Amino acid sequence: MSEYIEYNMTDRTIGVVEKKFFTFAEKPGGMVLESGATLSPVTLAYETYGKLDADGSNAVLICHALSGDSHVAGVYSGEDAKPGWWDFMVGPGKGIDTDTYFVICSNIIGSCQGSTGPGSPRPETDEPYALDFPMVTIGDMVNAQKALLDHLGVERLLSVIGGSIGGMQALEWAVRYPEKVASAIALATTTRHSALAIAFNETARQAIMADPNWKKGRYYAGPKPVVGLSVARMIGHITYLSDQSMRLKFGRRLQDKNDFSFNFDGDFQVESYLRYQGGKFVERFDANSFLYITKASDYFDLKKHHGQGSLVKAFSAAKARFLVISFTSDWLYPTFQSREMVKAMKKNGLDVSFCEIKADCGHDAFLLPNERLVQMIKGFIGRAHAEIRK
Amino acid sequence: MSEYIEYNMTDRTIGVVEKKFFTFAEKPGGMVLESGATLSPVTLAYETYGKLDADGSNAVLICHALSGDSHVAGVYSGEDAKPGWWDFMVGPGKGIDTDTYFVICSNIIGSCQGSTGPGSPRPETDEPYALDFPMVTIGDMVNAQKALLDHLGVERLLSVIGGSIGGMQALEWAVRYPEKVASAIALATTTRHSALAIAFNETARQAIMADPNWKKGRYYAGPKPVVGLSVARMIGHITYLSDQSMRLKFGRRLQDKNDFSFNFDGDFQVESYLRYQGGKFVERFDANSFLYITKASDYFDLKKHHGQGSLVKAFSAAKARFLVISFTSDWLYPTFQSREMVKAMKKNGLDVSFCEIKADCGHDAFLLPNERLVQMIKGFIGRAHAEIRK
Repeated sequence: MSEYIEYNMTDRTIGVVEKKFFTFAEKPGGMVLESGATLSPVTLAYETYGKLDADGSNAVLICHALSGDSHVAGVYSGEDAKPGWWDFMVGPGKGIDTDTYFVICSNIIGSCQGSTGPGSPRPETDEPYALDFPMVTIGDMVNAQKALLDHLGVERLLSVIGGSIGGMQALEWAVRYPEKVASAIALATTTRHSALAIAFNETARQAIMADPNWKKGRYYAGPKPVVGLSVARMIGHITYLSDQSMRLKFGRRLQDKNDFSFNFDGDFQVESYLRYQGGKFVERFDANSFLYITKASDYFDLKKHHGQGSLVKAFSAAKARFLVISFTSDWLYPTFQSREMVKAMKKNGLDVSFCEIKADCGHDAFLLPNERLVQMIKGFIGRAHAEIRK
Repeated sequence: MSEYIEYNMTDRTIGVVEKKFFTFAEKPGGMVLESGATLSPVTLAYETYGKLDADGSNAVLICHALSGDSHVAGVYSGEDAKPGWWDFMVGPGKGIDTDTYFVICSNIIGSCQGSTGPGSPRPETDEPYALDFPMVTIGDMVNAQKALLDHLGVERLLSVIGGSIGGMQALEWAVRYPEKVASAIALATTTRHSALAIAFNETARQAIMADPNWKKGRYYAGPKPVVGLSVARMIGHITYLSDQSMRLKFGRRLQDKNDFSFNFDGDFQVESYLRYQGGKFVERFDANSFLYITKASDYFDLKKHHGQGSLVKAFSAAKARFLVISFTSDWLYPTFQSREMVKAMKKNGLDVSFCEIKADCGHDAFLLPNERLVQMIKGFIGRAHAEIRK
């Protein structure tokens, strides 16, 4: 049984929003990355909703996951009327209330939705970087977000929130800039990838690199490695669902027919679904960005990079209050990994709330409308807001 | 904690063995497959060990899994001295004792290790069948095995044994030819694939079909789709291992260096391991056979094809005594699926033993030396043998 209930879309949507761009780290110098390489210039695509209070106490940063973007809520003007990826959560009167908070979301560096990534033109040549783009880490993504916040005049975050790779960014924020983070919400995430998670990512990367159109990343002038990227997305998609959700959603139901085709067309609905997901993804995502962002998530290791091998030590500098949420059927980042981080936070005397939400839908649960999740986040940020203004 | 213990190789090996071939279903007519198509001629590569008793009461059929072959035990003469894939289980004095039993194993049809499959020459043209090879089912594999047993003069099996897809064959034997099966051992298997198992297989198939060298299966005269097959094997390999086994085996250990490479070479040991497994597999396996055999396993559905939707009914004709074994960390065919079949067997008043073996190593556990598994199988066949000779 799932705790998911039908989500009632209110008509109080945030309405028309606009994607903006911020460019920094112009030469000389550029942005120094964790690998030691520099990147210049760096552009971030971002959106903001609501207004920053005079006392600067109401800024909420939302961090997106692997394939997300800055478009969290509302709709763009014109034809592209698709609501943002967390529209059920963000808006007037919603979980993250844009009547009360100043909400910011930026596309991560390394991605392909407006921020600087492997598909961006290299200033020296005006050709896309491709694999000459330097490797970026979760720490680098956070540092770029910090530059944006400085630009927007946000000195301290009331809250930083994210799921999956977005959750890694939220955790990184809390330990990297403890003075700047009053609270952090980490959903369906981990402090470091298991060998299983790395194995899935590596297999997906190999699928991309196996596509002859990939051409060591230099495909921007010709056909794209859509077939490899599609297989990579299918691999990813399996890990986002759960055995339960697939059983409920597809079982062994056949596609449009009563018996087997006895050929290699898709017989089962789950086959068609995965093919469709793979095919849809390639229209909107860059294969090289998939390589860079999955690698950044594999590298992420709070224990190693902030705690010299101790997770307790990694959280010793943090000052935020935390809300950690896991989902029962998430086998990519299972609950025990969340409990591990909660334990390490508590050992540092931090104020931590933890909740495991019963859900059939696997890792992707944080992206799906869920009234309980909305109320939990609303309550947590509200309390943090009251605390900060005392 | 695992129940696995170091396996002591005895020096009582089976010694040099020989691969043999049996051809049947010559024209006219040929072998009629479950799809309605016919196949002619059909050749099976097989090996036998031990001798058939005068009363024919000691025949044991071993069925192999996806990438297996007829070479279960012993070594070939000459250079290829690699022992058979279940050498720890089969031999003089071993779990399946070749001093006592007449042991048979044949390569399944659709495979590429000597039996007729998509890479075999089509008699009309002498060109490989490729995708003109008809789809084969687990039932077809069993029917071909039955033709071999008729040829060998085996009227009834003391036992039919298999793990994974081999376990599907063992179950199929017991319900398809109840009079011919005195006992059956089903290891790490299921009566039908879950949506998750189908999803993994389909993604692996898509990886193969995405390789431009695949050429809709017509690659035999040119370069083979080794890259696609390698990715397919990597996907499969993830499902054969377990989160636990990967954690124990690799964790986040880095390959040959103390820190990250900040490029797309393999950083983590698990990455190198998977690449190695993928690369090794393409040397010995045919991509089209991978497509056909995975599809046969997806189609397998004892409930639908023998029970009109009822698993209890599916086992109603069976007369064998059963031993069902699952492994705690097998998430491809989890224990609850074994319990389901045991329940259905028991409802038919069948004599069933069930054991869930504690093992860290995932689905592949049945292939790894395990003294407890050896003793369990030895005891079960011994009792069946005593019973049959009463």
